[in-house]
Amino acid sequence: MPKFERHIFICTNQRPEGHPRGCCSPSGDGELHRLFKAKLSERGIRGSTVRANKAGCLDQCEIGPTVVVYPEAVWYGHVTPADVDEIIQSHIVGGRPVARLIEFRARTASL
Amino acid sequence: MPKFERHIFICTNQRPEGHPRGCCSPSGDGELHRLFKAKLSERGIRGSTVRANKAGCLDQCEIGPTVVVYPEAVWYGHVTPADVDEIIQSHIVGGRPVARLIEFRARTASL
Repeated sequence: MPKFERHIFICTNQRPEGHPRGCCSPSGDGELHRLFKAKLSERGIRGSTVRANKAGCLDQCEIGPTVVVYPEAVWYGHVTPADVDEIIQSHIVGGRPVARLIEFRARTASL
Repeated sequence: MPKFERHIFICTNQRPEGHPRGCCSPSGDGELHRLFKAKLSERGIRGSTVRANKAGCLDQCEIGPTVVVYPEAVWYGHVTPADVDEIIQSHIVGGRPVARLIEFRARTASL
């Protein structure tokens, strides 16, 4: 068995202001990660089945803030706090990734 | 296409000394992550195909230091710097996960 049914990695990398690549968490407050955790918990989705995980730089700064969901390898870009509910409802609960936010995905993803 | 062929997450979470759950990076120096990056680079494995990524707490502190490789969802526990070469050679290069270090794995992993 996999350890988690879904493992959501949220980039929380912070770079100094003015850095040419920018970063996914300019404020450094990890708001996106906190929101994912809080909203999963509100829906009663147990942390033992779906985990919202802080990640260091995912190296996709140009499309940040970046979130990747494994094992499907669905990559979301330009994710805002307003998108978190939709990602959880559509993808995590419903199994339908949010097409408008997808930047990359595995060809073999069984979605 | 997936963004990375393999995405290695290395827990770099640090907790205060004496914390009951311990942590994967007591020294806080991220040595395991640095080693993975350096050794992948030494072998000429490009960061655009395999990424060694810092992760926040992976919530498997009891078996830490913890490393998880996606998309296969192979979880390694009690990983030491001495194990990094073997994980890279056997799993990342050869496609054969290192059985002696595996704690969990997906039933569907195509390995």
